Formats: sequence, structure tokens, C-alpha cells
Amino acid sequence: MNRRSFIRAGVLGGVAVMSSPLINAIQGGVTNGEKRSGDESSADKIVVGRASRMVMRFFPYELQLRHAFNLAKYSRTTTPDVQVEIDYEGVTGFGEASMPPYLGESVESVMRFLSQVDLGRFSDPFQIEEIHKYMDGIAPGNNAAKAAVDIALHDLTGKLMGQPWHKIWGLDASLAPATSFTIGIDTPEVVRQKVAEAAPYKVLKVKMGLDNDKELVETIRGCRPDVPICVDANQGWNDRERALEMCHWLAERGCLFVEQPMAKENLDDAAWLTERSPLPIIADEAVKRLADVLPLKGAYDGINIKLMKSCGMHEAYQMAVLARALGMKVMLGCMTETSCAVSAAAQLAPLAEYADLDGNLLIANDRFDGMKIVNGKVTLDPTKPGIGVDLI
Amino acid sequence: MNRRSFIRAGVLGGVAVMSSPLINAIQGGVTNGEKRSGDESSADKIVVGRASRMVMRFFPYELQLRHAFNLAKYSRTTTPDVQVEIDYEGVTGFGEASMPPYLGESVESVMRFLSQVDLGRFSDPFQIEEIHKYMDGIAPGNNAAKAAVDIALHDLTGKLMGQPWHKIWGLDASLAPATSFTIGIDTPEVVRQKVAEAAPYKVLKVKMGLDNDKELVETIRGCRPDVPICVDANQGWNDRERALEMCHWLAERGCLFVEQPMAKENLDDAAWLTERSPLPIIADEAVKRLADVLPLKGAYDGINIKLMKSCGMHEAYQMAVLARALGMKVMLGCMTETSCAVSAAAQLAPLAEYADLDGNLLIANDRFDGMKIVNGKVTLDPTKPGIGVDLI
Repeated sequence: MNRRSFIRAGVLGGVAVMSSPLINAIQGGVTNGEKRSGDESSADKIVVGRASRMVMRFFPYELQLRHAFNLAKYSRTTTPDVQVEIDYEGVTGFGEASMPPYLGESVESVMRFLSQVDLGRFSDPFQIEEIHKYMDGIAPGNNAAKAAVDIALHDLTGKLMGQPWHKIWGLDASLAPATSFTIGIDTPEVVRQKVAEAAPYKVLKVKMGLDNDKELVETIRGCRPDVPICVDANQGWNDRERALEMCHWLAERGCLFVEQPMAKENLDDAAWLTERSPLPIIADEAVKRLADVLPLKGAYDGINIKLMKSCGMHEAYQMAVLARALGMKVMLGCMTETSCAVSAAAQLAPLAEYADLDGNLLIANDRFDGMKIVNGKVTLDPTKPGIGVDLI
Repeated sequence: MNRRSFIRAGVLGGVAVMSSPLINAIQGGVTNGEKRSGDESSADKIVVGRASRMVMRFFPYELQLRHAFNLAKYSRTTTPDVQVEIDYEGVTGFGEASMPPYLGESVESVMRFLSQVDLGRFSDPFQIEEIHKYMDGIAPGNNAAKAAVDIALHDLTGKLMGQPWHKIWGLDASLAPATSFTIGIDTPEVVRQKVAEAAPYKVLKVKMGLDNDKELVETIRGCRPDVPICVDANQGWNDRERALEMCHWLAERGCLFVEQPMAKENLDDAAWLTERSPLPIIADEAVKRLADVLPLKGAYDGINIKLMKSCGMHEAYQMAVLARALGMKVMLGCMTETSCAVSAAAQLAPLAEYADLDGNLLIANDRFDGMKIVNGKVTLDPTKPGIGVDLI
């Protein structure tokens, strides 16, 4: 059965036959890293009155980084990514899975997971809670793949309601914080060049965990003595006494907070450090989903919420609510992503003390126009519904 | 300046002049207990393109009870209530404050609070978080008054988005639980009559705290031996040993849970009882708002969320999220209310293990058609936007 006759059979044959995975298997996985334009064929939009169903497409889209991305443990020039599009009643919602290698997902694992997701069994895209339960039932993990579906569904429902999600959540866009801009580990010359490029940003984020941590901070301070910095150690500090010493050293140099100083499993040392540190200690690798938050109370001052860890916007909002109720700070982060996932995360920004939403600025092949950084601040457009993006 | 010329002056003179409290002072407080119809004069709807502002009306509306309401500590035949209506861009959102006397609010206190609320300072009804901060800044407490504004704003934003709030929250209406129907303390003859009237309900709720608690349960069991019951002691049990004994006695008689067995301040005894009870122990008087939930972890198995305590739907949703994250059960309750506030609470029902949403069934002068109980179950209409009510 070819694609067109399959779809016709599905429509004519009733609801149960119109199973998205088959359509996905046909539509997904055909392009690899190529930019897809918005020209969907008419067959992609299946609108049958009240019986209309969601149709999901997905394809790999390799992100090209402007600068090589150097962390304590590895370096890379691209980030694997899968783009998701869900059609329903003539409206398309956009989603994205970004897979930095250290999180264990890949283009293959995301494509495999998405091909098992049958949205045709749900009556409409508003069934977010049940769709998440269903996806968690397919397989554990696969957080970025689940996030891609969740983001596309939020974009879709927001568009159907004509409002952006920050407004639907009752948030005031003007309360969104400044975003930090990340300066990766590099030679002093390259660091100086990156700091010069980062002139529009009001907060700089420094990745640490190598021997030259202090040199990196001193280099940045030499270029911009005034700018507040925040530090991400990416679990790179092994000794809690040395970590505390670094916190004091950083506090004297205008640092706002320190992210994930030690190994994520090491809750006792995190609690020891948090109790003594002059700077807030924020969990990143130590927290992915809602269930991870409560055990961190007392061990960290706050959590870094990222959609690729939280399985998307629905759980991310609930994590922010929980963290605030527990008296913990909320930081909003991202991976290297297109403006799709970054704009989706930005919808939550008014709930966050700190934002690190620069992922789209680090890539050279963005597919979307979305959230803007204006005067260093996360700036949401209240007239753009859903997650607030347009295909470029 | 009369009302019409004031409004014209406001429109012509610009945005800042159009201050809702003045309009409220003119529009509010003019009817007392009378049924208001939906015939707003055209002057009530001020639509000036993008410069349009919210306009709030409110008036007392005394609820007539079908049966005298007997609790451990008092009895009454009416409940004081204030109805709120907020207009914005030609759409009206309905809200309500119900004030059972033991919560300390009154028609006077609610009218006084609402007359201080100037919604004209907010650009649109989506600013829920900021409007709550603003209301909390006007005065502490006044939870029912704040709930009335919150419910009307949710009704308004839901209508503007064309969706009911259970769908906006991503909830599946089919997961809403059965509601209990309350059988008040009374003579055995009246109790038998009430149980007969409650035939359509799958769960009966029994108010306790007097000497004849066991007799009341036996009377109900005599009429309907099969029906699960739940018990609300309304802080009426003074001794924890006796409370535990009652929990065992009730567990043997098909009881589902016990609500607020002892004084709300007595957290130690609640924790002692919760640890030993064969039935879940649910906090009611011990919990009002979001900040009250965390301290109850370990002392109660769950919380009873009521909009008149939580200041409305926004915080109620967050309380449900928090309770679930803490591993606590969620019960959804109400006061004697019209279908307005009951339907607003029902939007959250798919998040609740237990529902006690019978408040509208206890009054003789409902203003609204809304949430229905079908086969004993809370039944939401997915096609009715906002809180899902129509003026009768």
C-alpha cells in the first residue's frame, strides 16, 4: 500500500486504523541534516472534522556549532538533533530533541522511540498528562525524544488557543531574567575573542573543571571587570574542601552562583558545600525530572531545569512550581538547540531566578525565528502563540 | 459625575483614569440576594481596542440551603456569598466567594476587599500571578474574596482561549473521580431521608464530631450497606487514642478515609494517627494555601483542596502538583456554593483521588448550569470553555 492509499484507507476505514507510527515510518527518517521547509503536501494534513487525528513527522537535523564546544570531558563541533512536527486540524506544532552525547541519547535512539509513539490513539493534543504517561510506558529514559513530542504538543495547543504559554501559565513576560552567555573552555586568546563577541550579554557563564579554572576567570575579568559571571563546574570538582575554597574565591570576583560543582551522585558533599558556600549551589546533572527534585532539598540551593532532561514543558512547569514551594531557586537552561526548544524553555523564564538560554546563539543553522535576547534579557513576544516560533 | 459620564471620561481621558474600584463602587453592592440576569447595559462593556481594560462587578447573593446544615459546632440554613463578574473585550468571566461563617469572611469583608481591587492596572486577564501578588499585597487572608477574582479571571481567559481549564492543564476529563455527597448530622429519620435522596451518589460523606457518630454511620449503613463512605470529623475528635479506635471501627465498615480528625494545630497527634491508621488521614482545616502543604508531609496522607481556601484555581493547581510530588493524596472539596465555584473546582478533578463536589446540590437558588454528576461521577463538558458554566 503506498502512502496516499494508506492514508485514504485510514480515513475511510475509521479511526483505529489511522495509526501514526506507520505514517511516521513513511514520513520520518527520510532527510538527514537537511533544512526542511514548511511546504507540507496536502496529504500531510488529515482533517476529518471531529474525527481528525494528530499526525507526527520527525527527521534528523544536525546542529552546526559556531565555535567548537569544549567541556571538561570532551569537545565537539556539531550536536545531533531531531526535529518533530505535529499536525492537527490544519495547525502545525514544532518540537525538537537535542542530544548532547553525555546524556546518552542519539539520533538513532530518538528516531526509534518516536516511531513507537502513536498519537492517533489520543483524541486531541490537549491530552498532555495521558500522552506523557503513555510515553513513559513505552520506555523509561528517552527524555529528549519525549521532550520533542511535548514541545510540539504545547506549540500546537498554544496555537489552537491563540496564546503563548507564558500567558497561559499566568506569567508576566517582563519578569523574565537576563540570560547568561556561555564562554567555553579554550585558550586565553579564543576566550578573549568569545568575551568580545558576548558584549550584548549582561551575565557570562564559565564552564570549569580543568586545571586552568582560575586563569579562565581572570582572563574574562580582564576583558569585562564589571560583568557578573556564573560558573558551571559540570561535576568537575572532586574535592569538597577545594570546591568550597573555589566558591569563596569566585564570590570575591562577582560570581552569582555555582552549578553542579561535584559528581551528581555525591549528595552528602553537595549538602556539605551548600551549607557553607557563600554562593548558591545549583543542581544540573543531579536533576532531570520532577521526581528528582524533592530528594535535592537541603543538598542544593536550586535546580537547573532543561526541557531535554524534564521531558518537555509540562513537567518543567511542575518542577518550577515544586522547587519554589520547597524554597529552592529555579534556573532555566538549555542544550545547544535551535530557537524551537530555546523559545519553548523561555516561556517559563518569568518563573526563574536565573536563565541560561543561549543554545540557539551557539549554532549556525537555526530553523526558527523565536525568543529574542534584548539588552541581555530573555524577551518573549506576547503576540506569538504556542512556543512563539516561526520557521525561517 | 454620574456613571455613564464617568465611564465616558475614562475612555476619552485615557487608560489610567479608568480605575475599576470606582466602577465597582458604582456597580457593586446594589442588589442583595436577588438573582441577576445576564443583561448588562452596553456601558458595562468597555472595549477600546488594545487599550481595553478589565471591569469588575460584584454583589451579595445569599445561598438558600435545601436542608439545614448541621456541623459539630453550629447549624445554618443560608450561606453568605458574593458573585463576581469581570468583563474584558466583550467576554464575561464569572467568579464567586462563598463564606461559611467558620472561615472568618463575610459579605462585608469580601465587598470591602473587592472594592480595593483595581484590575485596571493590569493589561489583561492573563496576568494571574501578578494579580495574586497584588491582591496578597492589599491584605492577608480574604481567601474567598481572592478566589472570586481568580475564578472569574480563569473563566475569562479560558473563554478567550476557547477551552475549559481541565484541557488547558492537559488533564483527561474521564479520569475525574466519583464525588461524595454529604449527609449532615441530624436525627435518624432525617438522615434516612437524606440517604434516600442521595441514591444517585456512589460515595457518601458523613460529618462527625458529636456523641452519636457511630449511630449515624449505622443508620446510613442500614439504608445502603454497600456504599463506600468517607468521614469528616471537622476537628471534632479530641483524643488520639479514641480517634485511632474510630478509624479501625470505620475501616471495618467500608470507610475510604477520614478528614481532619483532630484540631488543625495538633500536628503531632495527626502524625501519630496517620502512622497507625488503617485509613488515609486527610487534612482539611489544617491546609489553606500552597505554603501550608509542605509542613503537612508526614503528618497527613493527603490534603483537601478547596478554592475558597486556596484563593482560587491558580494556587489550587499548584497545590495539587505539590501534593502529588510529595506523595500525598489530593482531595477536592467545596463549600456550599453555586455551580460557578463548584464547576471551577471540578476542572481540577482529574488530578484528585477523591472529590467532594456537592456544594451546588445543597442550595435551592443556583445561578448557573455547570458541572454535572453523572452516575455519581464528576463529569466535565470539554466543549464548555473557561470554568464551564452558563447563567441559568
